[in-house]
Amino acid sequence: MTVNELVVEMSKSGCFGAGRLAQAVSIYERMLKEKALVIFGLSGAMIPAGMKRVVVEMIRRRMIHAIVCTGANVVHDTLEAFGGAHYRGSFAVSDKMLYEHRIDRIYDIYIPEEVFKSKFDKPVIELFDEIAEKNPGKVFSTAEFIREVGRRLRDGDSMIYNAYKRGVPVFVPAIQDSCYGLSLWEYVEKHHGKPITIDSCRDIQDLFKIIKQSRKNGVLIVGGGVPKNFVFQAAFKFNKPYDYAIQITMDRPEPGGLSGATLEEAISWGKVSGEGDRVQVISDATICLPLIVSAVMERLFKK
Amino acid sequence: MTVNELVVEMSKSGCFGAGRLAQAVSIYERMLKEKALVIFGLSGAMIPAGMKRVVVEMIRRRMIHAIVCTGANVVHDTLEAFGGAHYRGSFAVSDKMLYEHRIDRIYDIYIPEEVFKSKFDKPVIELFDEIAEKNPGKVFSTAEFIREVGRRLRDGDSMIYNAYKRGVPVFVPAIQDSCYGLSLWEYVEKHHGKPITIDSCRDIQDLFKIIKQSRKNGVLIVGGGVPKNFVFQAAFKFNKPYDYAIQITMDRPEPGGLSGATLEEAISWGKVSGEGDRVQVISDATICLPLIVSAVMERLFKK
Amino acid sequence: MTVNELVVEMSKSGCFGAGRLAQAVSIYERMLKEKALVIFGLSGAMIPAGMKRVVVEMIRRRMIHAIVCTGANVVHDTLEAFGGAHYRGSFAVSDKMLYEHRIDRIYDIYIPEEVFKSKFDKPVIELFDEIAEKNPGKVFSTAEFIREVGRRLRDGDSMIYNAYKRGVPVFVPAIQDSCYGLSLWEYVEKHHGKPITIDSCRDIQDLFKIIKQSRKNGVLIVGGGVPKNFVFQAAFKFNKPYDYAIQITMDRPEPGGLSGATLEEAISWGKVSGEGDRVQVISDATICLPLIVSAVMERLFKK
Amino acid sequence: MTVNELVVEMSKSGCFGAGRLAQAVSIYERMLKEKALVIFGLSGAMIPAGMKRVVVEMIRRRMIHAIVCTGANVVHDTLEAFGGAHYRGSFAVSDKMLYEHRIDRIYDIYIPEEVFKSKFDKPVIELFDEIAEKNPGKVFSTAEFIREVGRRLRDGDSMIYNAYKRGVPVFVPAIQDSCYGLSLWEYVEKHHGKPITIDSCRDIQDLFKIIKQSRKNGVLIVGGGVPKNFVFQAAFKFNKPYDYAIQITMDRPEPGGLSGATLEEAISWGKVSGEGDRVQVISDATICLPLIVSAVMERLFKK
Repeated sequence: MTVNELVVEMSKSGCFGAGRLAQAVSIYERMLKEKALVIFGLSGAMIPAGMKRVVVEMIRRRMIHAIVCTGANVVHDTLEAFGGAHYRGSFAVSDKMLYEHRIDRIYDIYIPEEVFKSKFDKPVIELFDEIAEKNPGKVFSTAEFIREVGRRLRDGDSMIYNAYKRGVPVFVPAIQDSCYGLSLWEYVEKHHGKPITIDSCRDIQDLFKIIKQSRKNGVLIVGGGVPKNFVFQAAFKFNKPYDYAIQITMDRPEPGGLSGATLEEAISWGKVSGEGDRVQVISDATICLPLIVSAVMERLFKK
Repeated sequence: MTVNELVVEMSKSGCFGAGRLAQAVSIYERMLKEKALVIFGLSGAMIPAGMKRVVVEMIRRRMIHAIVCTGANVVHDTLEAFGGAHYRGSFAVSDKMLYEHRIDRIYDIYIPEEVFKSKFDKPVIELFDEIAEKNPGKVFSTAEFIREVGRRLRDGDSMIYNAYKRGVPVFVPAIQDSCYGLSLWEYVEKHHGKPITIDSCRDIQDLFKIIKQSRKNGVLIVGGGVPKNFVFQAAFKFNKPYDYAIQITMDRPEPGGLSGATLEEAISWGKVSGEGDRVQVISDATICLPLIVSAVMERLFKK
Repeated sequence: MTVNELVVEMSKSGCFGAGRLAQAVSIYERMLKEKALVIFGLSGAMIPAGMKRVVVEMIRRRMIHAIVCTGANVVHDTLEAFGGAHYRGSFAVSDKMLYEHRIDRIYDIYIPEEVFKSKFDKPVIELFDEIAEKNPGKVFSTAEFIREVGRRLRDGDSMIYNAYKRGVPVFVPAIQDSCYGLSLWEYVEKHHGKPITIDSCRDIQDLFKIIKQSRKNGVLIVGGGVPKNFVFQAAFKFNKPYDYAIQITMDRPEPGGLSGATLEEAISWGKVSGEGDRVQVISDATICLPLIVSAVMERLFKK
Repeated sequence: MTVNELVVEMSKSGCFGAGRLAQAVSIYERMLKEKALVIFGLSGAMIPAGMKRVVVEMIRRRMIHAIVCTGANVVHDTLEAFGGAHYRGSFAVSDKMLYEHRIDRIYDIYIPEEVFKSKFDKPVIELFDEIAEKNPGKVFSTAEFIREVGRRLRDGDSMIYNAYKRGVPVFVPAIQDSCYGLSLWEYVEKHHGKPITIDSCRDIQDLFKIIKQSRKNGVLIVGGGVPKNFVFQAAFKFNKPYDYAIQITMDRPEPGGLSGATLEEAISWGKVSGEGDRVQVISDATICLPLIVSAVMERLFKK
């Protein structure tokens, strides 16, 4: 049974989570068939959780046209591009022991701190030097900055390298809230002249430029957080609700945070069109994103 | 891409939800390869949510050997066997309006109350008459009672008919907490002599007999509730921890309910073996159950 | 600051969880002022989690008039009445080690298995003997049976003893799915003549009798599970929607289970009145139940 | 019954959520008694949900010494300081209709878009003009910028005005991801010379300076998101784990996001001390924060 055949089965009953998932596949298929611009929001630390291959495939197949993500995702993408590995661990473990061995844990992923140092902290400083030298006086948006980083990674598996190659901008609105932020701060401290300047406010304008040019727009959001808010506030600010919206999340609406807010709430703000197609899949994203992408690919690219 | 190929991809990173799902597939595969007895716990109202086809396939392929489920699941299975339909609705709707039109809602499923009356209430009373007549004085366990019902449904799509045909007992420990309970009570009211007697305490013994005979035992639990507790209390009572345990649930452990309790907690009680294989998939069951079953079938039954 | 003053502060903003909690307090206050019948649904294992004192206070103050609960709650109430203790443990612990020491864990509560044996298994068998002797041939509803047990516990702290004293029936619709079920089964096994017969279908009728007599009805549900379904199916069966409904739960609606279903869904079935007052508090019940009860008591019983 | 008496009752059983809440109160009490530095992380849009009064009280009582929050919280605080109101609405409503009436919804809070325009967009531009004029050429950290805004609000109810008055820095690491970001971007667009420059990377250093000076450090985090990550990454970077940590959240750990990650996970990174006191309260923050703060105040400030 192919993945899409499974989804078609799910669409037959069309109820509960399976119904929502099948709907997500149909909406995503429609977005792409109608040549809508697809903005992809990626929160959390999904890259080390194995979603990198899926996202790279989406970039290559032109299934996403702009990415808005957390710092964590570009940090771990960079770390892997420099040869750093993530290790499969356990969520039920003595964290004190891990601390003594200098192993950082992300749920059931382990990263030795040594890897952070040798495969991220050190090489990115060299990258920064090169970028600063080649772009004297430049004020970067985060997307421009990540583009400069991405082009230098030269790793066919890297999300930001592939994004650079296909001209897919990667916005990281809260970049300072990540190891990139820490490294940039350290870099600037050392070079008192502040050779790399990032103005994340410029992302607002850059993201909107992309949206404005397109006839139809859609969002596909994994998780919530800053990526969800940032993608939506552009629509709100410029009064251009998204025609399509898909969110995969485990957060819930009742505590009042935006991450778990319904897509209906987004209609009231003019972030999502009341006439459009939208669905929230309340389920694990590392299961559902590959499932949705695989089914859509089967529908669109299969002979 | 086949479903199993997708799962194999998930197993490569082996992290977060995808890692747990891939593990569930491996454990289920192992259970079946090692000829373990598989007890299937099914809570909620999964039958009307389209899981019937999956469960029937599991029965036919001998992937489950005993079922412990809620009354709701056998009620809706029976209703469909008598020609009653469930309708695809919406979760965002005026329930007052539905009430005025006498339409009952289960999340995004609609059932006209008329269907309950004509396709469940009325025909089951006839079934009860027949069962009472053929079994004068008999005290049924719930599994024996459902077996008598199942054999009379003669609907190839029905879970309990297929269970009857393959000798898979269906335990419904809280049968009184369902429309079956309501109908049985009404039936007994009418026939003051109480012609159908169900002693659900006998299920304890019947379930244990099945467990005792087998060399290795496993459980596959969808949701939680009474099915999870009942399946586990048998192991607890007779001091025979399950060798394998898989649970798919969205409930969480912190509020202290058994539904969301970890499988590690079950080890302390001797319900699950500390040496065994176990995994909880924290994700939507209507998505994950078909995914797991399809992947396991591909591994075991594909040429 | 008194508890009610805190709740009044919460009611001023009236938003998110605090708004729902403040609403729950107001609805409960109104229920009692209007002399509505209050049915209390208690799922999970709330008694060993320290809720016993709150529930006993509710019984004594006549704030609840009937209880529908899980077997676990009456089991642990009985165990404590016989002198058994629950111990404060940790949720992050080696369950294998607990198993080796024969300590059963409920989230962060520990119960040595020895306590189960000496303070439950053994003394209840003696109770059963006495009940059987005094009631030859009687067929009990679960509420009648628990009443017989309760009157014999003679422990001023016990939920079921206090319920007996105040004439508050305690329904345990899925009693077989608990240690009471296991003990009853064992007892019946030993006494081949089956001296104690429980017909849980009779609860349906007994619960409805209580509802029918009252002018206005309300429910206060902690958690979900069988208690929620059983309380609601009575209203559904006899077409008598509750005028007031409060539920405290951490379950969510999207997976389709009844525990997390909205109270709006219950309107479609005629379980809850569309004209009535209702609110779901999505928060921890061991925090919110004492908070609500304390605030309502302050409003009603303070001089 | 006072709030603290209720918490003391909860601490007696010490189990499930009530146990965790009672522990949070004790840890917070200890933090303050030991004169630890308390950093307060506030995610979501808690200010319009009525938490403003609680936070202002915490500032005044010197119960928190630095705030790290989302843009949304300072935006709504500012809006209210300029006379804008939030309205109590319903979470179950037609968002299309709200959109047509230009009313923005945050769960069950309504804000007419007109209020955003007249009570935020317009007055903040005037503030920006004044700040730019008084600080020519200055590069602000977000805390310095919010301090400049706060001192000009002159509203005794405002969080950031009170923070300014008591010298409590308010960090907003992802300020661009909010209406402040949108307004700053617009302001800069108009004034091509970019008169207000914010370098959020400088927050890292400023936050750390505060931490370094103190003997003992603790965090109290409401929700998760950027505030949680930012507070923790400072500890990680400078290898100074927090001695105390409390988080109130409804997010769960299994999907792998930091918001729901356990505090044990933070130990592995050196963000939280393995020797320290820590607890996660898995419950609604709008209920639990006021409860905890009120109980701690009663313990510390009562005569």
